[in-house]
Amino acid sequence: MQNFTFYNPTKILFGQGKTACCGEMTLPWGKRVLLLYGQGSVKKNGILGQVKNSLAAVGITWVELGGVRPNPVLSFVNTAIQRFRQEQLEAIVAVGGGSVIDTAKAIAAGVCYAGDVWDFFCGKAEVTAAVPITTVLTLAGTGSEMNGGAVITKEETQEKYNLRGEVLYPKVSILDPTNTFTVPRQHSMYGAVDAIVHVLEAYFNASDPHLPIQDRLIEGLLHTIMEAAKIIFEQPEHYEARANLMWCATLALNGLPTAGTGNTGFPMHLIEHSLSAMYDISHGAGLAIVAPAWMKYAEEIAPRKFAQFAQRIFGIDEGKERERALAGIQALEHWFATLQAPIRLAEANIPAADIPKIAENARRLAVVWDMPEYTCEVIESILKRAGT
Amino acid sequence: MQNFTFYNPTKILFGQGKTACCGEMTLPWGKRVLLLYGQGSVKKNGILGQVKNSLAAVGITWVELGGVRPNPVLSFVNTAIQRFRQEQLEAIVAVGGGSVIDTAKAIAAGVCYAGDVWDFFCGKAEVTAAVPITTVLTLAGTGSEMNGGAVITKEETQEKYNLRGEVLYPKVSILDPTNTFTVPRQHSMYGAVDAIVHVLEAYFNASDPHLPIQDRLIEGLLHTIMEAAKIIFEQPEHYEARANLMWCATLALNGLPTAGTGNTGFPMHLIEHSLSAMYDISHGAGLAIVAPAWMKYAEEIAPRKFAQFAQRIFGIDEGKERERALAGIQALEHWFATLQAPIRLAEANIPAADIPKIAENARRLAVVWDMPEYTCEVIESILKRAGT
Repeated sequence: MQNFTFYNPTKILFGQGKTACCGEMTLPWGKRVLLLYGQGSVKKNGILGQVKNSLAAVGITWVELGGVRPNPVLSFVNTAIQRFRQEQLEAIVAVGGGSVIDTAKAIAAGVCYAGDVWDFFCGKAEVTAAVPITTVLTLAGTGSEMNGGAVITKEETQEKYNLRGEVLYPKVSILDPTNTFTVPRQHSMYGAVDAIVHVLEAYFNASDPHLPIQDRLIEGLLHTIMEAAKIIFEQPEHYEARANLMWCATLALNGLPTAGTGNTGFPMHLIEHSLSAMYDISHGAGLAIVAPAWMKYAEEIAPRKFAQFAQRIFGIDEGKERERALAGIQALEHWFATLQAPIRLAEANIPAADIPKIAENARRLAVVWDMPEYTCEVIESILKRAGT
Repeated sequence: MQNFTFYNPTKILFGQGKTACCGEMTLPWGKRVLLLYGQGSVKKNGILGQVKNSLAAVGITWVELGGVRPNPVLSFVNTAIQRFRQEQLEAIVAVGGGSVIDTAKAIAAGVCYAGDVWDFFCGKAEVTAAVPITTVLTLAGTGSEMNGGAVITKEETQEKYNLRGEVLYPKVSILDPTNTFTVPRQHSMYGAVDAIVHVLEAYFNASDPHLPIQDRLIEGLLHTIMEAAKIIFEQPEHYEARANLMWCATLALNGLPTAGTGNTGFPMHLIEHSLSAMYDISHGAGLAIVAPAWMKYAEEIAPRKFAQFAQRIFGIDEGKERERALAGIQALEHWFATLQAPIRLAEANIPAADIPKIAENARRLAVVWDMPEYTCEVIESILKRAGT
C-alpha cells in the first residue's frame, strides 16, 4: 500500500424523505443562499419546491439561479459569481447532478478569490477558501456530492478542466434515491457508466500491484453498480436499485477506492473530457466510448490486472492471460452496449477524421495533469481503437 | 437499504514516516497539549520520542501522562480531566491503541462538561462539546482512531460502557504501519479478531436483508484482515500485511460497513464487555470466545446470512442451509484457534459457574443499549455455548 491522506468531511443524509432536511442542514452555514439548479426538471418533478419549503421553514431566504447545462461552462460560473457578490449571499444550495454541484463549487471558490476563477483550473492558483455548499442530489454518477473536485468547460478554448480543494467538499449532501426516479433512462445509464469508470481508473492505474482491500472494494462497487443499472434500465422507480446506484456512485469517487493506490492519473477521463468539451455528448456516453478503447491500449502494456478484472467481474477463467484480459474488456464493452450507450465514436456522430484534433485538445490537459506519457500519438492510437 | 447519516471528518495520514507529521497536524488545534499514552511500550520502541520531537519542532508544549491500561478505567479518566484543567491545556495527543484513544475521548468530553463524565456513558447526558484530539495509532484493531465512540470501565460497578459524539472524532489520526511492528503477536491477533467482529456485528445484525454493497465491503474486509493476520502471525515486520490490517481495522468501525444496514445492536460486544470488565482478559480474546457462541445462537433463529458467510468467506458450498451456516461458524472458530486466541471460557480461566453473574452484568448494558431481547436467559444460553 502506498502512503496516503484520506479526508472527507461531507455529511451524507441518505434515504427517502431526506430532502425535507435541507433547510435545517443548511442553516448553520448561511441565512441567505444561492439556490442553484439546472435545466428545470427539478421544477417539474417537485424537488425544487420541496427544497424551497424546507429552506423557508427555517427562515432561509434565497436567490434562485437555474440554467446550469450539462458539461457546465465557465461563462455561467462567472455570471453567478457576480450575482452572488451583488446579493451578498452566504452559501450555496445546489439541487441537481454533477453539473450543478460542480458549478456550485466553482462559484464557491470564485467568490472568495479576487482573480480569475479559471486560475484554479489551469494550475495558476490553489483553492484555499470557499463559501459553504449543501447539495440535494438528483442524478447518481459523478460523485461530486462527496468530494472536493469540479469540472468546468471554458467555451472559447474548449478546455474541460478541473479544480479541487479541501474547502470544496459539500458540508452536507442529501441523497434521496426517489429524487432520481424521473431521470431519463439513458442518463441513468450514463451515470452508471461514469461511476464504473471512476473506480476502473483507480483499479487499472494504481502504481502499487498489491491492493487487496482496494481491489475488493472496487470489485464490490462494480458488481453492485452493474446489478443496479440493469434493474433501473427496466424499472426506473425500483427504490433498492436506485439506492444502491446512488450510494455506490458516491463511494466510487469519494477518495476511498484510490486511498493507498498511489494513483497516477485518470487517463480515461483525460481523453473523454475532450469529447464532451468539443461535441454535444454526455460525459458518461463519452466514457463508454473511451474506456474500452483505453483498456485495449493499456492491456497491451500490462495485462495482469485486466485478466483479474475479467475473472472477478465477468467470471472469465479460460485462455491465456492476454486472452482473458481482452475478453474482459469486450465483456464490459458489450455490457455498455446493452445499456444503449455508444461504444464507438461514429455512434456519437464524431468523425474519425477529427481524432488528431481531439488528441491535441486532450494533450493540453495531459500537460496540466502532468501525464507526459499521454502524447498526441498515444492519445490518437487510443482513440483509433474507438473508431472502428 | 435503510436510511442513514454518514459523517466522518477525521483526517487520516497513512504510511511509513507519517509520525513526524504529528506536530504540524496538531498545531491548528492547540499549542499546549496533554500527551497521553499507555504502559510505556511507546517509550521503548521510540514512537513517543518521535512524537515529542515533532511537537517540539512546531513549538507545541505538553504535559505527559502515561499509564492508561488495557480495558481503560474511569478513575484514570477523572484524574486526567482534573490534570487537563489545572494545566489549562487545549488539546490531546493520544499515542497508543484503542485504550489510549478511548481514554482521550472520555477526557476530551469530560473537560467540557460540568457534571460527572460517567453521565455520558449511562445515557444521562449527551456529548456536545469536546477538546480536539489527534492520535498516533500503535495497535490495529479497535477502529477508535476514526470514529466518535469510546469504551471505559467503571471499576466499582464493573460496568464497561460506551459514549459517543460527533465532536469526538479525532481531528487527525496518524496510521504508520511500522508503529505496529513491535506489538506482541498475541495482541496483534486480538486486534484482528476485534476488527473481524466489528464487521460481523454489522453483517449479522443488519435489519435489512438486501445489502449488496455493504456485504461485499464487509466480505472484502474479512478476507483481507484474515490474510494479513496470518502473515503477521509469522512475520511481525511484514509492512504490507501490517498496512492492510491497519487500514482494514480502521474501515471496519468508521461507520461505512453499517451505513444503510439499519443496524440494531452489537450483541457480541455487549456480552464481551462483561468478560473484560469482570476478568483480566483482552477485549479481542473475549470476542474470540463470545463471537462463535453468539453466532451459534443467532444461526438457529435466522441461518441465511450465516450460510452466505460460510460460502463467501470459507467457500463452504456443501450441505443444507443450516449445515453450511454451522460449518462456517466452526471454520471461524477454528481460525481464531489457529491464531492462538481462546475460544472457550475455560481457556481464559473463566469458570462456567460464573455464567449467571456475567449474564447479569451484560443484562445491565443491554438495558442501556436498549436491546430488550437480550435477557439474562438469552445471554446465559449464549455463554453456555462457549463453556463446553
